[in-house]
Amino acid sequence: TFLNKSLSDQDLLCSKSNLLTYQFCPCHFNSLFVHFSSCSDVTISRSCVPIPIECLAEEIGLFSDEVELYGRTKAKVQLKTIDRLQAQPDGKYVVVTGITPTPLGEGKSTTTIGLVQALGAHLKLNAFACVRQPSQGPTFGIKGGAAGGGYSQVIPMEEFNLHLTGDIHAITAANNLVAAAIDARMFHEATQVEFLFRLSKLGIKKTDPSTLTEEEITHFVRLDIDPESITWQRVLDTNDRFLRKITIGQSPTEKGFTRTAQFDITVASEIMAVLALTTSLADMKEKLAKMVVATSRSGQPVTTEDLGVCGALTVLMRDAIKPNLMQTLEGNPVFVHAGPFANIAHGNSSILADKIALKLVGPQGFVVTEAGFGADIGMEKFFNIKCRYSGLKPHVVVLVATVRALKMHGGGPTVTAGTPLPKEYIEENLALLEAGCSNMRKQVENAQLFGVPVVVAVNAFKTDTKAELDLICKLAKAAGAFDAVHCSHWADGGTGAVDLARAVQKAADLPSSFKFLYGIELPIVDKIRIIAQKIYGADDIELLPEAQHKVDLYSKQGFACLPICMAKTHLSLSHDAEKKGVPTGFVLPIRDIRASVGAGFLYPLVGTMPTIPGLPTRPCFYDIDLDTESGEVLGLF
Amino acid sequence: TFLNKSLSDQDLLCSKSNLLTYQFCPCHFNSLFVHFSSCSDVTISRSCVPIPIECLAEEIGLFSDEVELYGRTKAKVQLKTIDRLQAQPDGKYVVVTGITPTPLGEGKSTTTIGLVQALGAHLKLNAFACVRQPSQGPTFGIKGGAAGGGYSQVIPMEEFNLHLTGDIHAITAANNLVAAAIDARMFHEATQVEFLFRLSKLGIKKTDPSTLTEEEITHFVRLDIDPESITWQRVLDTNDRFLRKITIGQSPTEKGFTRTAQFDITVASEIMAVLALTTSLADMKEKLAKMVVATSRSGQPVTTEDLGVCGALTVLMRDAIKPNLMQTLEGNPVFVHAGPFANIAHGNSSILADKIALKLVGPQGFVVTEAGFGADIGMEKFFNIKCRYSGLKPHVVVLVATVRALKMHGGGPTVTAGTPLPKEYIEENLALLEAGCSNMRKQVENAQLFGVPVVVAVNAFKTDTKAELDLICKLAKAAGAFDAVHCSHWADGGTGAVDLARAVQKAADLPSSFKFLYGIELPIVDKIRIIAQKIYGADDIELLPEAQHKVDLYSKQGFACLPICMAKTHLSLSHDAEKKGVPTGFVLPIRDIRASVGAGFLYPLVGTMPTIPGLPTRPCFYDIDLDTESGEVLGLF
Repeated sequence: TFLNKSLSDQDLLCSKSNLLTYQFCPCHFNSLFVHFSSCSDVTISRSCVPIPIECLAEEIGLFSDEVELYGRTKAKVQLKTIDRLQAQPDGKYVVVTGITPTPLGEGKSTTTIGLVQALGAHLKLNAFACVRQPSQGPTFGIKGGAAGGGYSQVIPMEEFNLHLTGDIHAITAANNLVAAAIDARMFHEATQVEFLFRLSKLGIKKTDPSTLTEEEITHFVRLDIDPESITWQRVLDTNDRFLRKITIGQSPTEKGFTRTAQFDITVASEIMAVLALTTSLADMKEKLAKMVVATSRSGQPVTTEDLGVCGALTVLMRDAIKPNLMQTLEGNPVFVHAGPFANIAHGNSSILADKIALKLVGPQGFVVTEAGFGADIGMEKFFNIKCRYSGLKPHVVVLVATVRALKMHGGGPTVTAGTPLPKEYIEENLALLEAGCSNMRKQVENAQLFGVPVVVAVNAFKTDTKAELDLICKLAKAAGAFDAVHCSHWADGGTGAVDLARAVQKAADLPSSFKFLYGIELPIVDKIRIIAQKIYGADDIELLPEAQHKVDLYSKQGFACLPICMAKTHLSLSHDAEKKGVPTGFVLPIRDIRASVGAGFLYPLVGTMPTIPGLPTRPCFYDIDLDTESGEVLGLF
Repeated sequence: TFLNKSLSDQDLLCSKSNLLTYQFCPCHFNSLFVHFSSCSDVTISRSCVPIPIECLAEEIGLFSDEVELYGRTKAKVQLKTIDRLQAQPDGKYVVVTGITPTPLGEGKSTTTIGLVQALGAHLKLNAFACVRQPSQGPTFGIKGGAAGGGYSQVIPMEEFNLHLTGDIHAITAANNLVAAAIDARMFHEATQVEFLFRLSKLGIKKTDPSTLTEEEITHFVRLDIDPESITWQRVLDTNDRFLRKITIGQSPTEKGFTRTAQFDITVASEIMAVLALTTSLADMKEKLAKMVVATSRSGQPVTTEDLGVCGALTVLMRDAIKPNLMQTLEGNPVFVHAGPFANIAHGNSSILADKIALKLVGPQGFVVTEAGFGADIGMEKFFNIKCRYSGLKPHVVVLVATVRALKMHGGGPTVTAGTPLPKEYIEENLALLEAGCSNMRKQVENAQLFGVPVVVAVNAFKTDTKAELDLICKLAKAAGAFDAVHCSHWADGGTGAVDLARAVQKAADLPSSFKFLYGIELPIVDKIRIIAQKIYGADDIELLPEAQHKVDLYSKQGFACLPICMAKTHLSLSHDAEKKGVPTGFVLPIRDIRASVGAGFLYPLVGTMPTIPGLPTRPCFYDIDLDTESGEVLGLF
């Protein structure tokens, strides 16, 4: 339970107390507005003195032995907290998603933080934000920071955007140990006769390899990996386009065993998905052991357990599994934990962070978590994958909409990062807007398929007019949203999301009738078709030969009962990023299907998914610098 | 200054106090001996309850705002500590090195820790150990942990051997951002006409590229990197042999711009060497900016500053620059900071850790730091490179010798990791031993070339006889060592190194006459020849054509005045690992020369240096596991 806290009294704040209500004192926040209203994100972030993280931890009811400090503004929270709070009823569970976005993004992270600031600092409710850890690749490449924006941010934003507590680095290390183990194993199998080293592990007591039966050799000693079948890739958390396709093993020491391989970005790795979907240390170990890396020549799946590496993986991930505590600009607690890709993975922060936060806020409190991309992707996966594995029932969907994106869906000109917005987007244009609201309507309907009430948050930009904002609200309610409100949390912090917070609070009191979209026992193809037809609006799906082959393979290997994680563009409800609004009359092509057996899903590839971004001609790193006098990070917007 | 501490009173230990003397109370350590005398390293490590790191930090005189906690057993120490203690005289500076080792290693790390335990816990002097952070590659590959051993260890050893506070991961990220920037830059230069993005950085105000003069285009806009000249490699902290030679850029998105490249292990990277040799945040930024990654087609060195990435590198490294505080089994402070390769880099822990530790221990205290490999490599580089950049003057060399290694030098059979030792090594054999002591004599003489007194530490193994140990001591003193003593710190902890500690204390009181072996103003070839002749005992050196080419290139580019960092096998004084004892009559071949301009040295390659190890047929990771109930790491010896 959260503690009563007064920011004006740091001693009291750190004292041992055990009150049950949480009260945020916004004094240290409000004064910011007057002075910094047109500042950059980093200036706003830095103008705010963070609450010492050990004080925040105590204030929200964590015991000191449950908290591991990482410097002064970050801490890891141990999983034993869940056991201690087992009897505590969960809080209300809110997921923030969005309409189909422009390439610029429509402010889901900012809305997540702004809503929590409003719930906590202004409505005086216990509120916790759970967000993803960003990849460093885009931070130094094209996207910059991802800590929210304006007056709705996680602070310090440079800690948030850089190494944090090293979780992504741990994943890189674990992932690449598997990759090294695969190639070394194939090399040793090809160049050495005996594999006694596996015997002890497998419980065979024979020490003379010549006494092994043929079956023992086949089943236990040689993995006999088919090099063509390897699905495990190396990873880096860097935007390095030249590693998209490489040839490895070209040194003479590898005796000609070259093969084609690739690097993905770390956040696209299965281990990242495992981290996000695991529910305990034992469960993570089991998931890490089940990861399938290839198929043997006889058609058997080869796992990390077969490679003998799963224990080492668990060791490498033992700190990463603990959620990272940070705070909003207004001093609300934030868990930053896991950041799986939203296309080839499920794009949601960790189950464990949500679970601990739901216990900490208590039954009247709120946990606001964010799902990546639009509602057709992140939200669908939140429900069908994340909630399925967590067992948690969501109370409210917040659907973020912007005038800009809806105008695009209504037929406005192309929106491109790095170029000025065409005038349609900065002048009132109700006709364009109304036409585009079809996308919002469809996404509201998508949320309702899961039986969860929807609140539309209209994230207002400076150039939006009141008539435009009102039109969206009117059409949202007509589409079935429980409520729809304007928000100005980017410019105003929590104050700007108070109406949203009130609407969310009311919606959370509605009786829940949450349901999954499909049963996992359905055949693979049926599950894909249900998502394509009901969520995307496709007429049907079409399996290309490689996909059909994988349906057969995975069905044979026993993986057919996994949920589906569609790898589709986020820029359209369809598979074609150019098709805006609500595309109809299309057949969704399934190019291939891959399996993340450890994480627990199959991911059909709809088109080609880039799994490691590149650096643009003028990367963000040009502007990033460190003032060696003050130690301040510059240029990280 | 260290504080007075009593381990039996945790409250007192954490109280604000400011005493000037340091006193270690060994009570919590002694009780270990009886019960665990034949246990594995990890069992010993775990049987000891670490002092809370914030208490240790306070006890050694650090202010709480100078310490950043990373969990309960690790902390980073801020560099401002040096400024605060500017007026404090430095302590005594001791470097631990060794004779030419067997492939098993002769216990330098263990001696470093044992000596500090003896100085601190038993002689009641302020004592600080400074050691390198190990690479995770060998930890999961063939070597296992590197936290010392037996009753002389850094604890907790699993923290020490795994992610620590993420410094190596930060280096991986920084290094690979440079690599991505190089290839992306060449790609954009080859596929795009305009490079306006560099103009603002370079102070050119023109916005129309057509108004650029030819000279401006040549000098400022295009780096025009010669792909054949690229010396910057990607890195991973994984033993992945299949990345030793690769072809990159084979995806169609890279339009055919493929090239041959390689991955090195992270600890072999120049950024690791920079971290180890830097003296301040501003100095690190300057070093990171000066790193040369390639040569342009017109022969100019291309730096990370030219790539526009040096600010981002500094940001990525801003936490890594702070030394990591841990502790020995007996509660002495240890800095674990930086771990550069000892062949293509200088193999010593960081200057900053040594500097802070020397201030903290005060003039009567001791800082014991370790140099990698034998005295011909790690110690020579410690003096000629590390001390040259730090300005610190060492007081004592501790030269670790073992019966095992000296017998090998005397003509004993080959010693191989993973196979039982031949009987020569486990039975008394004074003749073999005496013959092999020539190597010790030469290494003692090597240390004396620098004007520093030598204490030989004979690291005793169970099977060594008293006659053998005495013989080594006698011959060591005859060779000119100030003293030579038996040590049993592996079996006995600090108690087993008390004689060594006393000898070191006496040696440290001798008048110092430290001097470098060569002046950096000498021509490159002369500097290499001095090291080869005086340290290795070579008749002369021979420059192969590529090396001669680099001498010319670096002399032209202005890098001739850098110190020399020889990349030579550590298994022989010569370039041939098979030649034991004191090889004579050889000419040292210099195959190539590379430059780490940012770190500040040239490294001649003597033979072929592996820069990324592979996994053996039975890697360590097979035995590594996590008990998910207790959270304990298993199998990390």
